[in-house]
Amino acid sequence: MRRISGTLLPRSAHREDAVLSTMQDVPLTVTRILHHGMTIHGKSQVTTWTGEPEPHRVTFAEIGARATRLANALRDELGVDGDQRVATLMWNNATHVEAYLAIPSMGAVLHTLNLRLPPEQLAWIVNHADDKVVIVNGSLLPLLAPLLPHLPSIEHVVVSGPGDRSALAGVTPRVHEYEELIAGRPTTYDWPELDERQAAAMCYTSGTTGDPKGVVYSHRSIYLHSMQVNMTESMGLTDQDTTLVVVPQFHVNAWGLPHSTFMSGVNMLMPDRFLQPAPLADMIERERPTHAAAVPTIWQGLLAEVTANPRDLTSMANVTIGGAACPPSLMEAYDRLGVRLCHAWGMTETSPLGTMAHPPAGLSDEEQWTYRVTQGRFPAGVEARLVGPGGEHLPWDGESAGELEVRGPWIAAAYYGGADGEHLRPEDKFSEDGWLKTGDVGVISTDGYLTLTDRAKDVIKSGGEWISSVELENALMAHPDVAEAAVVAVPDEKWGERPLATVVLKEGVTETDYEALKEFLAESGVAKWQLPERWSVIAAVPKTSVGKFDKKVIRKQYAEGELDVTQL
Amino acid sequence: MRRISGTLLPRSAHREDAVLSTMQDVPLTVTRILHHGMTIHGKSQVTTWTGEPEPHRVTFAEIGARATRLANALRDELGVDGDQRVATLMWNNATHVEAYLAIPSMGAVLHTLNLRLPPEQLAWIVNHADDKVVIVNGSLLPLLAPLLPHLPSIEHVVVSGPGDRSALAGVTPRVHEYEELIAGRPTTYDWPELDERQAAAMCYTSGTTGDPKGVVYSHRSIYLHSMQVNMTESMGLTDQDTTLVVVPQFHVNAWGLPHSTFMSGVNMLMPDRFLQPAPLADMIERERPTHAAAVPTIWQGLLAEVTANPRDLTSMANVTIGGAACPPSLMEAYDRLGVRLCHAWGMTETSPLGTMAHPPAGLSDEEQWTYRVTQGRFPAGVEARLVGPGGEHLPWDGESAGELEVRGPWIAAAYYGGADGEHLRPEDKFSEDGWLKTGDVGVISTDGYLTLTDRAKDVIKSGGEWISSVELENALMAHPDVAEAAVVAVPDEKWGERPLATVVLKEGVTETDYEALKEFLAESGVAKWQLPERWSVIAAVPKTSVGKFDKKVIRKQYAEGELDVTQL
Repeated sequence: MRRISGTLLPRSAHREDAVLSTMQDVPLTVTRILHHGMTIHGKSQVTTWTGEPEPHRVTFAEIGARATRLANALRDELGVDGDQRVATLMWNNATHVEAYLAIPSMGAVLHTLNLRLPPEQLAWIVNHADDKVVIVNGSLLPLLAPLLPHLPSIEHVVVSGPGDRSALAGVTPRVHEYEELIAGRPTTYDWPELDERQAAAMCYTSGTTGDPKGVVYSHRSIYLHSMQVNMTESMGLTDQDTTLVVVPQFHVNAWGLPHSTFMSGVNMLMPDRFLQPAPLADMIERERPTHAAAVPTIWQGLLAEVTANPRDLTSMANVTIGGAACPPSLMEAYDRLGVRLCHAWGMTETSPLGTMAHPPAGLSDEEQWTYRVTQGRFPAGVEARLVGPGGEHLPWDGESAGELEVRGPWIAAAYYGGADGEHLRPEDKFSEDGWLKTGDVGVISTDGYLTLTDRAKDVIKSGGEWISSVELENALMAHPDVAEAAVVAVPDEKWGERPLATVVLKEGVTETDYEALKEFLAESGVAKWQLPERWSVIAAVPKTSVGKFDKKVIRKQYAEGELDVTQL
Repeated sequence: MRRISGTLLPRSAHREDAVLSTMQDVPLTVTRILHHGMTIHGKSQVTTWTGEPEPHRVTFAEIGARATRLANALRDELGVDGDQRVATLMWNNATHVEAYLAIPSMGAVLHTLNLRLPPEQLAWIVNHADDKVVIVNGSLLPLLAPLLPHLPSIEHVVVSGPGDRSALAGVTPRVHEYEELIAGRPTTYDWPELDERQAAAMCYTSGTTGDPKGVVYSHRSIYLHSMQVNMTESMGLTDQDTTLVVVPQFHVNAWGLPHSTFMSGVNMLMPDRFLQPAPLADMIERERPTHAAAVPTIWQGLLAEVTANPRDLTSMANVTIGGAACPPSLMEAYDRLGVRLCHAWGMTETSPLGTMAHPPAGLSDEEQWTYRVTQGRFPAGVEARLVGPGGEHLPWDGESAGELEVRGPWIAAAYYGGADGEHLRPEDKFSEDGWLKTGDVGVISTDGYLTLTDRAKDVIKSGGEWISSVELENALMAHPDVAEAAVVAVPDEKWGERPLATVVLKEGVTETDYEALKEFLAESGVAKWQLPERWSVIAAVPKTSVGKFDKKVIRKQYAEGELDVTQL
């Protein structure tokens, strides 16, 4: 069996002569989350959308029993041992939650596969992680089956849920039906005693450049992150709540929600493959979740849907929105529907909870906007610093813009180097003293609120000054004619770089007045020297597999002359 | 310098070949709480009652700066080094919070002294802990000064706040004024890198038998406990809240509140020495805390006060009540005032958060009572089991009564053995596999709610069956004539032990009809064989220094024939 090597990682001060307390030394593990959720919160539920008249409902007690059966099956039938990787290629559903709990608890490593990646990238990742088993939803077999000949490490395919199985005829790995595999297995398991620093789960970043990079979460990082998510300064949900988990379980562990909700008994509403605006609106109206988590694109689509076909969304008082900056206009639109969107910031490398934008106490609704439009403030577990172009540490004064670096027990210190390899610590990603370089540029206010102004790689370096592409985009998207806008740096002989503004017009808008848009930007407070000269209307902003603007595509289109650009 | 020995304690599985994640290995420390609170939550406040027209107010940013000055003073002026113990003999106030943050962060050990202990026990504890410095409130010098000749380890006395200093004339240790000592010191400090398992604070149990026993909290245990207190399934306060911390800082670190509130920016209202019902009612009405924490005795007194002289307590929507079982009648009385009392259970050995009695979701007010009268359910960090008289593990069926044993990262595994000694693990306190034996007897329901029925030592062993003294007391205290009741086991020739019921009558009640009380018990559902035959009216129930019934005093009074007992 091959192991994930960790020898490169420094340990915090474990002085052999350290003055020890009289406290118990109990490890923080996913096993503990499993046990706590299935007993103390045994009546809480996971509801999975099925497209049928009735959704599928299962209690935490049942999830726990089924997860235990799964662990027995993986060990006894499939021979999973030690820290072997068990992959999932699944939607958000109750079975996927079982995998989240069973695999780490037995000492193996849960590897969630991003089903939106190009097939060749998916194959690269499975091979790099050396996955032995893949659990797959039946509806995703058309994606998996053609890849199997390129996945030599996969010995077992476990299929769950509806979908035609015929594509699996004649494949090399053994094929199992999930329900048959776990049926009749014991509901007890001699869970191993784990080191809390041991690998529990892994997730590859969908890097827009270079090979994907694997982040390996530990039991400790998952446990502490779950506690933080459940703290009132973060999401702070209880067993009185139901959260609609739209953010995929293959995307930074659905922001940690399956583990954090299981820890606190928060009911989960899982959309499975029904991620279109209409079924999402239906499930909100029928199941009345009190909270939801998703990227802005989802909320844009849902807003259009309920504007056209009204539904009652009012149960969903609080929504965590992340993955990309949310236009204030979208937050205002949801305010009017009785739904409050709260910004959060994070990355695959931060588990992901980095900040949340709860305003400080004692402010009026109007005053709260100053804070709601920021990325938010850091929880106790996340230390932050801003580093300027020359490596200097910048003050938290709301004005000094630098690259954000973070440190904490659920923040990555390295990337997975592959089986038998050593962990990788690229210099552009990790500082010498072990902090994560986020690649995000921003400012921090005196009271600790982070405002990201751009990605370090998207900032437009114009004549020795920085122009934030994101600020221009947000200002543009507030214009009534504009559905979406993406601003990228393009080469400029005089200034080095200048902004190119690409806009997607709203349905029904056919004419574009670039001068008027430029004037609108100036009136929104954009400095004269930052106003774009180059403009282009595009049909849609290219997006990455997780719905982020893919600006390198626009830069490439511009470089190759594929865009119809107007110069003012 | 003498160290606290920790060699007896087992460490959790630290396998050298363990599969490491790619996560940062950042220790969980009080230093991190200090930094987070003073920056991100710099505007939150600690308000201390002074008895003057205006209370004393200080922000978390100022507390942080002053704590840093204190650390500099302790190191540079007083020579505190390594894990030396710095004691506090103080009320709940802002200065005491500074000590809570500065002393552990510099690597030293905060030792809170219980000012209600008999002087000889206090001296024993200071000598056992080998305290080098004591920080004392001026108002407590009459207690400390006469003890100093018996405290040879104390080299420095630091006095804070009002009070006559003359008692310190001619004492051996050097005497410092707190404000003078910290004035002008730097507001930066090169905080050491700490092992999270290192000692941070210690607290002695006010054991009613034998020598006091020292519990030594680690940075890790304090940090995790603070996170848990801030989770929604526990107290779940935010920077929108103000908590009235009545439970003394010398009593299990005020249930962890100074650290947990500093972590989340929760405002603190500190009563200092003004713990009488009238000033407490005044500070609630004027400062409008949203939460409070105290033992039942405090709430009994406050209720009497506001019944006689009404005050507005409605801001205080939630109250955490612990330290002893709370009679349901008291909870009902506060419900009528718009104040909801929520049971919590814990001990010095559990940091103390062991359970909290939030009812599960979806119940009517009436149905919630089933859960509100329990001790509550366990948070994820606390594992629990019930152990029967024969050492067998009992089911969670709501009926099988056994001794509660707990395990978790903020639960004690041993007691402090004294300088140069090894930690102590008495068999009646710790199981062979490292769980804490709580000494509490109770049942756990199928949905994980704990109901304590008695202390293991107070249970009445009558003819091979157990009678709960606490259940009899609660039933008796629901009688309109009864102010308080204590039931103890007394020897009985036929049954081994039988209950003796001692009652304190309400003011104005002069006649006692024991037959009627016995009949009242039977009507409350007490089984016939459990009804006491021996009765006595007493003036007051003897209490320990922390307000708990001191039943060994009653047993002794009975044994020595000092009680006027009626046998029915």
